[in-house]
Amino acid sequence: MKKLIRNIGMLATPQGTASKSGKAQGEILQLADAWIAVADGMIDRVGSGPVPNEYFDEVIDAGGKLVTPGLVDAHTHLVFGGWRQNELGMKLHGMGYLDILAAGGGILSTVKATRAASEEELYKKAYDALDEMSSLGVTTCEAKSGYGLDRETELKQLRVIRRLNEEHPMDVAATYLGAHAVPNEYKDDREGYVRFLCEEMIPEVAKEGLAQFCDVFCEKGVFTAAETERILTAGREYGLLPKIHADEIEAIGGSELTEKVGAVSAEHLIVCRQSGIDAMAKAGTVACLLPATSFYLGATYAPARAMIDAGVPVAVASDFNPGSCPSLNLQLCMNLACLKYRLTPEEMLTAVTLNGAAAIGMADRVGSIEPGKQADIVIWEAEDLNYLGYRMGSDLAASVIKNGEEIW
Amino acid sequence: MKKLIRNIGMLATPQGTASKSGKAQGEILQLADAWIAVADGMIDRVGSGPVPNEYFDEVIDAGGKLVTPGLVDAHTHLVFGGWRQNELGMKLHGMGYLDILAAGGGILSTVKATRAASEEELYKKAYDALDEMSSLGVTTCEAKSGYGLDRETELKQLRVIRRLNEEHPMDVAATYLGAHAVPNEYKDDREGYVRFLCEEMIPEVAKEGLAQFCDVFCEKGVFTAAETERILTAGREYGLLPKIHADEIEAIGGSELTEKVGAVSAEHLIVCRQSGIDAMAKAGTVACLLPATSFYLGATYAPARAMIDAGVPVAVASDFNPGSCPSLNLQLCMNLACLKYRLTPEEMLTAVTLNGAAAIGMADRVGSIEPGKQADIVIWEAEDLNYLGYRMGSDLAASVIKNGEEIW
Repeated sequence: MKKLIRNIGMLATPQGTASKSGKAQGEILQLADAWIAVADGMIDRVGSGPVPNEYFDEVIDAGGKLVTPGLVDAHTHLVFGGWRQNELGMKLHGMGYLDILAAGGGILSTVKATRAASEEELYKKAYDALDEMSSLGVTTCEAKSGYGLDRETELKQLRVIRRLNEEHPMDVAATYLGAHAVPNEYKDDREGYVRFLCEEMIPEVAKEGLAQFCDVFCEKGVFTAAETERILTAGREYGLLPKIHADEIEAIGGSELTEKVGAVSAEHLIVCRQSGIDAMAKAGTVACLLPATSFYLGATYAPARAMIDAGVPVAVASDFNPGSCPSLNLQLCMNLACLKYRLTPEEMLTAVTLNGAAAIGMADRVGSIEPGKQADIVIWEAEDLNYLGYRMGSDLAASVIKNGEEIW
Repeated sequence: MKKLIRNIGMLATPQGTASKSGKAQGEILQLADAWIAVADGMIDRVGSGPVPNEYFDEVIDAGGKLVTPGLVDAHTHLVFGGWRQNELGMKLHGMGYLDILAAGGGILSTVKATRAASEEELYKKAYDALDEMSSLGVTTCEAKSGYGLDRETELKQLRVIRRLNEEHPMDVAATYLGAHAVPNEYKDDREGYVRFLCEEMIPEVAKEGLAQFCDVFCEKGVFTAAETERILTAGREYGLLPKIHADEIEAIGGSELTEKVGAVSAEHLIVCRQSGIDAMAKAGTVACLLPATSFYLGATYAPARAMIDAGVPVAVASDFNPGSCPSLNLQLCMNLACLKYRLTPEEMLTAVTLNGAAAIGMADRVGSIEPGKQADIVIWEAEDLNYLGYRMGSDLAASVIKNGEEIW
């Protein structure tokens, strides 16, 4: 099955498998009057000017618009029960954090709702979210467990993620995040919970092939750097590649750990110090930044520029979750990347495509428009890349193509 | 033509013609299991429990969802030529404000593009924007001139607004904003431009019935408080009600002027002082706040709470324009109202419905779900009001009804 996407006003794409230096983050290919030849869902050739003089089964006219790789949302908590809108009302009516916890709020309320939900309920809700994400231009994403915190529910979440990856057009990478919080059952036995993760859960998740990554929320009051290292090391032994929720609220050594454990990515990094940036640069860790969470929480924004300057590849993702970021809109994160991180539109594009792919170990397959990669492509209601950072609040994805098929 | 909207899980609406005190801003009617009877496009009756036992030509099932009044976007610069995405790229690549001006950027570039555009081009572009705004739940809006700054183009903009009001389902209130900037032709003769506005333009705009309001950008380097007073007084003599762009960047007396000129609304108010708040409270001026502009510019947020506490009715609008706020998404402003102004969801609802209507003198017709008002109604993909402030980046408007007709 051969297809041609023609009449591309401007094709913009990063190239390769990840930006390896600060310079590379903004170094993208921009090709005017371009075309893409697709064969069996893969990108076959890319060019500009006259289109190939051969037979194509289908020709897609891009209408002179901007075309980029499909977006990659490298950090989501896609699968969860319930929502927590009541907490917004409580906060705005003056209730404090502890009052809300006492009223049953916080992450453990999502754990409760996720435990109570059937696998089918979780699947349908997450499927709808994937539909909306893909309508906004996302063709690949990551999804984490971490709202079960017990054996059954974590496995249930991961099975839902596996089924979504199989049945939804979106590619979905799976991350085991049993170390998202200490559940009530273990609140007086943290050590017992860490052992449960390392000795029971990780081996089982790995054996069933339910995740490619292992992630830990390394934060004051959640998991220490030492515990994080133990859990990620155990994960690594079973073939789960390390990710770290690091330096979101307090810098307790999470980003510095990336070098030691060989983390594929570190996430949040709002209060990341230079020592953490240096560690990531040495380890080749992708900094996966989540600007909508900073926005939603009224927090500061991660030092993206310092990371790029240090040669750390920066990805930008949604962090979609029911507590600190009830938004799945990666286009909004693209605005935030330009307006708040001050990324140039070119750097922003790399952050939501190639470096997102690198953050989930898929940059050999997706994240750029190059021969040999999947034909994951967005045609934008835009003339140029600046427009994607500039316009806000409108869905600019005119057409979304996944493995060569128009899915929106 | 009689219609019934039934199976409303929760009906939420402010009541009356504007919030008259800080308390009233958050005092809304919430009615579970509700219905609305519509006759000839107007709201006839509202109730809960068993529906009226009579014949209706049409029955709309709200599916147990949240229903509110149609949103009112009380501040937009809807009609303009071109976009300015290139300025975002310039800024992020390190160009300063003066460099961008020298490269032909800034408001005067929009003036140039608006002068160059045909009436038909401006109409079609603005019509599409109204379509998108209404798909997001807005059923009434305001639109300003101010990108012509010469006789012909200002009249062209206002004629476009009049035609949009007639031909698009949206109600569109018209504001003459000749005093948006001093055009190049008058840059050495400010006094000449003020006289031109007061003596030529205002009489002509009023005579042709092209606007209901007169607005001035009262700001350092634009129009002084004394000039603002002269222009608004001239407008008032010709029946154009006063609005003021006040205290956006520097407080130079704009909000304090509201009492003296009897302003219907004051806009922006980012750096508004207590003296300005007091003046607005005495004058009954609506504070029309534009949080997406603060967001986009990285500015602080207007002191909404202090205004509500002082009894000033607070409206929240989009400020859609090609320079400082290229977003027409009022739902995003609802998030910002909760997250950044810290309005409760109830106060936020009043701000984007009834007080928006009051800011454009239409609160007798729209802005609440009450017998005698237009049947402008949104059915939301939501269970309750908290959800509208909480979810971000998704279009939550499930159905939009204007004058009793489903338009989305």
